[in-house]
Amino acid sequence: MATVSAALRSRVRRPSMFSKLAKAEDLVKHFQHGDQIGWSGFTGVGYPKLTPTALADHVEREGLQGKLKFDLFVGASTGPEVEDRWAELDMIDRRAPHQVGKHIAKGINEGRIRFVDKHLSMFPQDLSYGYYTRPRPRNPRGKLDWAIVEATAITEDGHIIPGASVGATPEILHNAERIIIEVNTRIPNFEGLHDIVESRNPPYRQPYLVQHTSDRVGVPYITVDPERVFAILESDKPDNTKDNTPETEDSKLIAQHLIHFFEEEVASGRIPKTLLPLQSGIGNIANSVIGGLAAGPFEKLSVWTEVLQDTFLDFFESNKLDFATATSIRFSPGGFERFYKDWDHYKNKLLLRPQQIANSPEIIRRLGVIAMNTPLEVDMYAHANSTMAMGSRMLNGIGGSADFLRNAKISIMHTPSARPTKTDPTGISCIVPFASHVDQTEHDLDVIVTEQGLADVRGLCPRDRAPIIIQKCAHPDYRDMLMDYYERSLHECLKRGAGHEPHMLRNAFKMHESLRLNGTMKVKEWDA
Amino acid sequence: MATVSAALRSRVRRPSMFSKLAKAEDLVKHFQHGDQIGWSGFTGVGYPKLTPTALADHVEREGLQGKLKFDLFVGASTGPEVEDRWAELDMIDRRAPHQVGKHIAKGINEGRIRFVDKHLSMFPQDLSYGYYTRPRPRNPRGKLDWAIVEATAITEDGHIIPGASVGATPEILHNAERIIIEVNTRIPNFEGLHDIVESRNPPYRQPYLVQHTSDRVGVPYITVDPERVFAILESDKPDNTKDNTPETEDSKLIAQHLIHFFEEEVASGRIPKTLLPLQSGIGNIANSVIGGLAAGPFEKLSVWTEVLQDTFLDFFESNKLDFATATSIRFSPGGFERFYKDWDHYKNKLLLRPQQIANSPEIIRRLGVIAMNTPLEVDMYAHANSTMAMGSRMLNGIGGSADFLRNAKISIMHTPSARPTKTDPTGISCIVPFASHVDQTEHDLDVIVTEQGLADVRGLCPRDRAPIIIQKCAHPDYRDMLMDYYERSLHECLKRGAGHEPHMLRNAFKMHESLRLNGTMKVKEWDA
Repeated sequence: MATVSAALRSRVRRPSMFSKLAKAEDLVKHFQHGDQIGWSGFTGVGYPKLTPTALADHVEREGLQGKLKFDLFVGASTGPEVEDRWAELDMIDRRAPHQVGKHIAKGINEGRIRFVDKHLSMFPQDLSYGYYTRPRPRNPRGKLDWAIVEATAITEDGHIIPGASVGATPEILHNAERIIIEVNTRIPNFEGLHDIVESRNPPYRQPYLVQHTSDRVGVPYITVDPERVFAILESDKPDNTKDNTPETEDSKLIAQHLIHFFEEEVASGRIPKTLLPLQSGIGNIANSVIGGLAAGPFEKLSVWTEVLQDTFLDFFESNKLDFATATSIRFSPGGFERFYKDWDHYKNKLLLRPQQIANSPEIIRRLGVIAMNTPLEVDMYAHANSTMAMGSRMLNGIGGSADFLRNAKISIMHTPSARPTKTDPTGISCIVPFASHVDQTEHDLDVIVTEQGLADVRGLCPRDRAPIIIQKCAHPDYRDMLMDYYERSLHECLKRGAGHEPHMLRNAFKMHESLRLNGTMKVKEWDA
Repeated sequence: MATVSAALRSRVRRPSMFSKLAKAEDLVKHFQHGDQIGWSGFTGVGYPKLTPTALADHVEREGLQGKLKFDLFVGASTGPEVEDRWAELDMIDRRAPHQVGKHIAKGINEGRIRFVDKHLSMFPQDLSYGYYTRPRPRNPRGKLDWAIVEATAITEDGHIIPGASVGATPEILHNAERIIIEVNTRIPNFEGLHDIVESRNPPYRQPYLVQHTSDRVGVPYITVDPERVFAILESDKPDNTKDNTPETEDSKLIAQHLIHFFEEEVASGRIPKTLLPLQSGIGNIANSVIGGLAAGPFEKLSVWTEVLQDTFLDFFESNKLDFATATSIRFSPGGFERFYKDWDHYKNKLLLRPQQIANSPEIIRRLGVIAMNTPLEVDMYAHANSTMAMGSRMLNGIGGSADFLRNAKISIMHTPSARPTKTDPTGISCIVPFASHVDQTEHDLDVIVTEQGLADVRGLCPRDRAPIIIQKCAHPDYRDMLMDYYERSLHECLKRGAGHEPHMLRNAFKMHESLRLNGTMKVKEWDA
C-alpha cells in the first residue's frame, strides 16, 4: 500500500479511504477493452490526470492502439494531455457529449470515433436514464464500468469536493459500478464553492428552486457510495489550461453594438437597469463583450453561465459584477493564480453548479437570461450552425448553446461577418442562404450581430428578417450576392404560392459548394 | 343599452359589467387600421365569434379589403368562420404564433400576411416582453390595442372563466389596453376546470410547482383589470369544430410499433409500468396511438399535453387513463355532447392550463413526458421539418412540437414513410437525406417511427443513426436510394476528413427538386 502524505491526510477526512490508496499504474490491469468510462471535468478543468495517463502509457508501451478502446463520457472537454492523447492512441470508441482537441476531432471526422453530440443540460440525465450505456457480463445493470473523478477533498462521510468544475460528475458517480478518486493536493481545497443538487429521475424529479443567481439550493459536496470506491490516488498535476483568446478589432466592434443594444433595451423598459443574468461563451468575442460591460454603463450585474474565463476576474474587479455562477471556471494559469490569491474575496461571489442545473431550461427561462454565443454560420432567416463545417465536419459540438438560446429572454448570436480561407481573406461568409447544419432554429434567435452591425429580428416574419440580417450583418463582399439570392427566391416562391420563407433549394448550398471547389464562397451567379 | 338576458345574468356575477353590455356591430367603429389585436382561443375552441364577425361583415359591406388590416395574435388556431374569413378579406397584416386555415395559409404563402412562427410556450411571454407590439399614438405603452376574449362566466371580482381553452388568454388580457368579453351562454360554465398561473416576468418569475399531472398550482379564473373592460357581449355561437381524422392502416401499424416499444422500455426498467405522462398531437396517428393505449397493457396512465381530442374520451372510458391536462379540449360536436353529459365524471379528471404552463420546458422535463408528434419529413440523421413544405411553404407552424420534443424524456416523431402526389402514390418520401427545413434537431429526437418500423437512435452517433433510420423507417421505394446517398456521402466525406455527419451538399435537396420538377422524389442517380 502506498504511503499517505501529509497533504493527502489534510484533504481526506474519511480515514477508511486510505485503505484504498493506490498507484495509477497498478489500476491499469483492471480495465478491459469495451469498458464504459465516465470522467469528471468540464472545459478542460477538474478532469482526472493520473489514471488516464497510466492507461495511455500502457497502450503506447504495449502497442495496444485500437485494441484497448473505451466509451468515454465527460460533461464537456478535458485536458489535451489525457483525452486528446487517448484519441491519438485510438483508445476511444464512443464519446459524448462534447469535445475539444485536434486528435479527437480527427478521429471523429475520419470515422474512428463515434461521437454523440448532445445538449449539455441533457447529457447527465440521459446518462442516468441509461441511454448511453449497455449491460455487459461484468456489469449486468448496464451502468458505467468506471467513474474516474478528480476531487480537492473528501468529507467525513466520504463525499467528494470537486475542483474547478462540477459538470456531469454527480451523475457519472451515481451511475458507475467502480469509482476511482484522484485527490489533487496541488490545487486548493475548493470546499464551499459548489452548490450540488442531485437530480432525481421522473416521476420523482423536483423543481429547482433557484430564483436569483446567488441562490443556494443544494449541498457543497457530491455524495458517493463508499462501497463502490475502487481506489483513491494522490495527484499533483495542475489543470492544463491555456491563455484566453485575445480580442480583435472585430470583436470590439461586436461588443460595442451589443452594449448599444442593451442601452436601448433598458431605455425602452424591456429589461431593468441591472440587465438580467448574462450568459457568455468562450472566445475573443465573449472576452470583448465582458470587457465592454466591465467598462460600460451598467451596474450590479449578474452572470448565469456555463463557464467563466479570465475576463470575469476583471469584470469582478470593475465592481460592476455582483455575482456569477457557472459549472466550471476555466482560468488561464495566471488567472488561477489571481483567483487563489483573492480567494476570500471571490468565494462569496461565485458558485459552481452541476451542468444539469447551470444549463437548465427551467432556470434559464425563469431568470430571463441574456444569452450570447458564437456560431459557425447563421442563415438569412436566423437559423444557426453551431457544430459542423460544411454540414459534415464536426468541430466541438453543440455544448450548451441551445440550452441557453432556446430559453433565454434575449437570444443573441455574435460572429464575425466573414472568415479567411487560404486564398481569400473573406472567403467564408458567416451569413449564408441556408445553414449547412441547423442547431438553433429561426424560432429561437432574437438578435444576430457581426462587426458590421446588429439585426434585431424579434417579432419579424422570415421575409422581414432576411433583408435586415443581410443588410446589417453580412460582409459587404457578400451583401449583393445574398440579396440577389433572397430576391430571386422571393420571386420564384411567391409565384407558386410558397413564399413564407423563400428559397431556391438548388442554390441553397451553392456558396458552400463553391467554398469546397474554389476556396471561396463568392459565387458569380445563381443557377436558373 | 342592450337588455340583460336571464342566461347572461346567471353567468355574470359582477353587476357593474352590465353597464358595458353592447352589440358587436356597435363596436366596429372603434377599431382602426393597424390595430394590434389579441384573441382568446386555441386549436379552434374558446375564440371570440361576434366581434370578429361584425368586423368582417363591415369590411365586406364597405369594400375595405386590404384597407382595414390588423396584427392578430391568438395562442394557436381559431375557428375558420372568423380567422380564415379575415384572411380571405385581407384583414390580417401580421399573425403569431400558429394558424390553421386555407385562406390564411394562402395569404402567408402569397406574401400578404406576415406570419411569425413561434414555440407556443414562448409566445405568451414574448408578447408580455413587448416583442410583438409597438407604441402607437393612441397606445403609447405599446401594448395590444384590443383583447377580444370569450368567457363562460365572470366572477364577483370581474375575473374571467374561460371555455374549452386557456391558451394565451391570460397574457393577452394583461397586455391589452381595451378588453371585449364575449360571454358564451350556449355552452356550459366551465368553472373549476381551469388552473391558471399568471406568470410574472423576470426578475420576478417563480418556479411552477407542478410535480404531478393533476397538481393545481393556480386559481380557477383569469384576472382582469375592470377599468380596461371596454364592452361585454352575449354570445350563443358554438365552437366550430369538425370530426377527428379517422385512423388508417398505416396509423394503426405505427401505434403497434410504439406500444411494443413502450413494453420493451418498461421491461428494461427505463420507465415505470404506468409509463410517464404522455403528450400526443392531433391527427390520425395520434388517434391510433391513444386508441392503442386504451386497448393496451398499461394502466393508471396520465397525460400532460397541449390539446385533447375525442379519442381521449374513449381513453378515459377504458379506465386506463387516470388524469389528463392540456391547454384546450378540441372535441368534435359529438365529443362535446359526450363530455357535457358526463361533466361530473370528467371534471375531476381534467385540467386546462395556460399554454405557457402546458408547454413549459420546466414542467415537461421535470415530469419526464413521453412526447409524440408528426413531422412533414425527417432526415436520415434525425432532424425534422415540422412546418414548411419544400423549405418554403408554411403549413401551420411549429406549435408546441419543439417545446415537448426538446424536453421530453422520450422524444418520438411518427409519420407515414411516404405520401402520395398526383402522379405517384409514394411520390413523397418522409425520410429524406436533408430536411428542407429544420425545426427539431438531431440533438432532440430519440425515436422515429413509420408504418415500416421503429428506429431508436438514443445514444447513437450520426453514422450509426442513418442506416437504422433508412432501414427501419423509409418506404421500400426509397430505401436503396437513401442508402446510396448515405454511402456515397460517407465515402466522400471520410476521404477529406469531414465524415462525422456525411453529406453531399450538391445532392442534399435533389429529391425535393425532383418533386418540384417531376412530381416525385424518386431520383435515378446522384450528381457526381
